[in-house]
Amino acid sequence: MDQITSSLALYHAWVSSASRRVRFVLEEKELSYQGILVNLLEFEQHSPAYLALNPNGFVPTLVHDGHAIIESSVICEYLDEVFPSRPLRPTDPRDRARMRVWAKWTDEVVIRAFQVANWNRMMAPTARKWSDEEVERRLKAVPVPDRRGETEIAHAVANIRRTLERVETDLSREPWLAGKTFSLADIHLSPYIVRIGEHVERGIRLADYPRCADWWQRLTARPAFARARIEVVAFKE
Amino acid sequence: MDQITSSLALYHAWVSSASRRVRFVLEEKELSYQGILVNLLEFEQHSPAYLALNPNGFVPTLVHDGHAIIESSVICEYLDEVFPSRPLRPTDPRDRARMRVWAKWTDEVVIRAFQVANWNRMMAPTARKWSDEEVERRLKAVPVPDRRGETEIAHAVANIRRTLERVETDLSREPWLAGKTFSLADIHLSPYIVRIGEHVERGIRLADYPRCADWWQRLTARPAFARARIEVVAFKE
Repeated sequence: MDQITSSLALYHAWVSSASRRVRFVLEEKELSYQGILVNLLEFEQHSPAYLALNPNGFVPTLVHDGHAIIESSVICEYLDEVFPSRPLRPTDPRDRARMRVWAKWTDEVVIRAFQVANWNRMMAPTARKWSDEEVERRLKAVPVPDRRGETEIAHAVANIRRTLERVETDLSREPWLAGKTFSLADIHLSPYIVRIGEHVERGIRLADYPRCADWWQRLTARPAFARARIEVVAFKE
Repeated sequence: MDQITSSLALYHAWVSSASRRVRFVLEEKELSYQGILVNLLEFEQHSPAYLALNPNGFVPTLVHDGHAIIESSVICEYLDEVFPSRPLRPTDPRDRARMRVWAKWTDEVVIRAFQVANWNRMMAPTARKWSDEEVERRLKAVPVPDRRGETEIAHAVANIRRTLERVETDLSREPWLAGKTFSLADIHLSPYIVRIGEHVERGIRLADYPRCADWWQRLTARPAFARARIEVVAFKE
């Protein structure tokens, strides 16, 4: 095992959700790897050296036997293909298709929804201190209301709810998102659900989705979850 | 073969690029299937019957042995997994990762770029009839210039160019986008390259990308390309 895995290096950041997905896979598969931190505050992901590995300038990048693999969902499937023990993809092709639909939903809908919702949330602690009169006064002072911004945030929150509803529906049939066994589908979604508590003020509560809450308990109890450091920690690299 | 494939049905539209990708795969693999046209002009993709198959309300949907598979890139991998003869995925996991990076790039960058660029192009035939003076007069009449629109279109055109540059780079190493053999990567991009001629007025010419132009000749010469009806035809369902 040591010989096989000594050639694995992961360029990542602790705070990056995409990095969390790959760390979760590496820990579930009990693969040892060299972790190389990319300092996002210093924009190291845009340095020429990093761009030579990853032309998109995103973390993470996996380097296996000297070859760079990019895009977290692609890296996850790659690791499961190259290291088949402790499989994280269902064997049934239909379940595998569902797993990939969850990967796409995460990449195309969930990531954007959390970005938009969190961007606005950064303003919320300030805005909450205002009285109703002050909110009204400030809104009147805006020459052209930012309808696009409001619409985008409402859309993002709706997509977070829709995601939780889809989790709930899928779990009504089977214990994990892509079938009978824990898979990449569960892993892909986990770095976003871990931050769901940040949206309580929008009325989003995991407890309102009982199967989802139960799934989350089972997922976070996995030893790999702690080892991969999926939990949100204070931002320090 | 007949018994295996008689259970394949594809809900699709001739004009849908995502449908073209799946038809191309079905024809390359020589799988017979029942094609069921979804009338997009009548919004049949939003009908309750269709939404029961595909909650996203997009074409295409594959129905195999009574089970619906959604998302064109997922359907393509599913077909290659379930019907392994005439494989369309590279055997080397690294090439397979590159193939999946191309699928993601197509879904997340290319589709949007062509949507934005084409939306604007629909206005172009009208705008081209105006004299320079008329264009100037009309621009002056706009109370708030649509900077966002302009930026978005410039961004879309830049992404089309970037895509062609990536094709050129990849083909400098190997004959197909994901390695030595024709694969899903080539198929995913084809419904967009087939429309590249519509962007000549923006200075985008396939001839400026010689390896890409050669790749396109080889791709369009494949018998499956014609059978799948990838070529743009007049809009009639």
